[in-house]
Amino acid sequence: MIPGEELARRDAVDAALEAFVQERRRDLEPLGPDATALLDLARDAVAGGKRLRPTFCRAGWLAAGGDPDDGRIDVAAAGLEWLQASALVHDDVMDDSDVRRGRPSVHRAVESTHREGGWSGDAAAHGRAVAIVLGDLLLSWADQQLRASALPTVGRGLDLLDLCRSEVATGQYLDVLAQTRPEVGVEEALRIVRFKAATYTVERPMQIGAALAGADDAFVDALSSVALPLGEAFQLRDDVLGVFGDPEVTGKPAGDDLREGKRTVLVARTVERAGPQEREQLRRLLGTREGIAPLRDMIVRSGALAAVEKDIADREQAARDALDLLPQAARAAIEPLLLVGTRRSR
Amino acid sequence: MIPGEELARRDAVDAALEAFVQERRRDLEPLGPDATALLDLARDAVAGGKRLRPTFCRAGWLAAGGDPDDGRIDVAAAGLEWLQASALVHDDVMDDSDVRRGRPSVHRAVESTHREGGWSGDAAAHGRAVAIVLGDLLLSWADQQLRASALPTVGRGLDLLDLCRSEVATGQYLDVLAQTRPEVGVEEALRIVRFKAATYTVERPMQIGAALAGADDAFVDALSSVALPLGEAFQLRDDVLGVFGDPEVTGKPAGDDLREGKRTVLVARTVERAGPQEREQLRRLLGTREGIAPLRDMIVRSGALAAVEKDIADREQAARDALDLLPQAARAAIEPLLLVGTRRSR
Repeated sequence: MIPGEELARRDAVDAALEAFVQERRRDLEPLGPDATALLDLARDAVAGGKRLRPTFCRAGWLAAGGDPDDGRIDVAAAGLEWLQASALVHDDVMDDSDVRRGRPSVHRAVESTHREGGWSGDAAAHGRAVAIVLGDLLLSWADQQLRASALPTVGRGLDLLDLCRSEVATGQYLDVLAQTRPEVGVEEALRIVRFKAATYTVERPMQIGAALAGADDAFVDALSSVALPLGEAFQLRDDVLGVFGDPEVTGKPAGDDLREGKRTVLVARTVERAGPQEREQLRRLLGTREGIAPLRDMIVRSGALAAVEKDIADREQAARDALDLLPQAARAAIEPLLLVGTRRSR
Repeated sequence: MIPGEELARRDAVDAALEAFVQERRRDLEPLGPDATALLDLARDAVAGGKRLRPTFCRAGWLAAGGDPDDGRIDVAAAGLEWLQASALVHDDVMDDSDVRRGRPSVHRAVESTHREGGWSGDAAAHGRAVAIVLGDLLLSWADQQLRASALPTVGRGLDLLDLCRSEVATGQYLDVLAQTRPEVGVEEALRIVRFKAATYTVERPMQIGAALAGADDAFVDALSSVALPLGEAFQLRDDVLGVFGDPEVTGKPAGDDLREGKRTVLVARTVERAGPQEREQLRRLLGTREGIAPLRDMIVRSGALAAVEKDIADREQAARDALDLLPQAARAAIEPLLLVGTRRSR
């Protein structure tokens, strides 16, 4: 259970996603029966998500005085789930991850189908290719789903979704680039946190919700003061869970971020505390399976874990302080979500 | 030179693309200097294209009585170039292609930068990862660019772009799936031609242009009768060029489609003419570098090449016949483009 998860109106978001897929089935009927398999993969790709972004989107809507009973916000907010599903499917190809949400990642599952069926050609390449086109399909559905809400304010929501899409792709790029460097400093790691996750997961969804509710630009801007620290705290918690999380709960293998060689803030904070010999050791171990256990030990012993816990607490406090400056209605809508970023276990 | 290329208003489309990139640079400035490299890759990805889709889009606009001097159609039509650039960048990853438009493909170029710089991690995986996020960025720009036209009719244009994006991703999926089968029949190969290329390259762009000009649904539907056969002819010519084209002119290695094992109509028409022994030989040679020369020979000798040339001529005729049924203004706008599909050398 995630604090705030009950705020998600999961049923309404799920219904919007399902209705959308059914419409796409009708659109794509002329492409024949094989196309069905791709649509099934698309539906699976949004199953079991935490619906975090729709939750933040709804919070922004309520904060700006949107009608809590207006179902159009759930339809619009569901678009963020297609964007997220696309990012995850492509991310798993990029990181060559085997597992997602406790199940095989899309490219691996498709690879297995290929292999078990004795199909022609290279199974791994086939899995990757299908995952790439699936991610493209999902990405193209994000703005389409937002427009399906038919809210009169949809134009401003789309402008913010534009920023969100560009930021997340570019943030991903910075992350990919960081993996090519022997070391990444704390400042750079925090920049990646901001643009790969904080804007994308919290700030833009919340702003989209507010804009759809008809908020003025000043209010939309003011939400950043709460949403950015909250989003950073969320991603920093994700980084901690990526190293120390329980695989049963996170649905990802233990220490996966270390095995993938991710240059997280947790790693950067370890580097900044390490002597020359430990730095050398860290570089050697990062990105290997054998390195997981000794790196975990190093992260704890160096004080880096405690430092990142302080980073999280500082951001939680900054979000609280900023929230106090917002009008009462906004405070009431956002307050329950403060713990989502910081106290969750998955 | 491609017949009809002079109709493209290339300068106006290029200016719209360039203005768009400059705005994204401003949006993404907070992400720091490294993000610049991704924006440079994005700009390069639309350089040197044939601007076919904007040309068909403009033809649809003119066919529906749109003002030839209204620059907003060029801004809207430019969105199709981002979509196409995204498809090419991802396609090259999926097919593991080395060359595009006579230059290294994006993932290969980035791989080389990684290798030459002595960066950490796997160079090929890095090239693929950057190409995947770049393609995502480009894809998310297609509808954003269309909306940047600020045409009052943009909603209907977006509805057609939605169809176009879903169809091209699903058509790509059918194509990927076809590569896993020992053989693909002519009917299935033609279906892939239709949904991977004909709708995407000709029909939807032309319909988007007409819808943006304010055409009614009946007119938009009627355009399909010309656009679909024209688009199929276009892709069949592409298939012929992919096997027999001059690399100096096409910018792709000779016989690349055969090396990649593409299940094109050309191959399906060869299979339908082959005896059991030749079929076995064809299966063995397809998807290998050594197979290029003997397969070319087989395609000519079997009469498959001549059959596909007839497929192209039949579709050119069908497009002409359908065009005769459209109003005079529409005939004048589309007629010059009939040869684009059929008589080009690249």
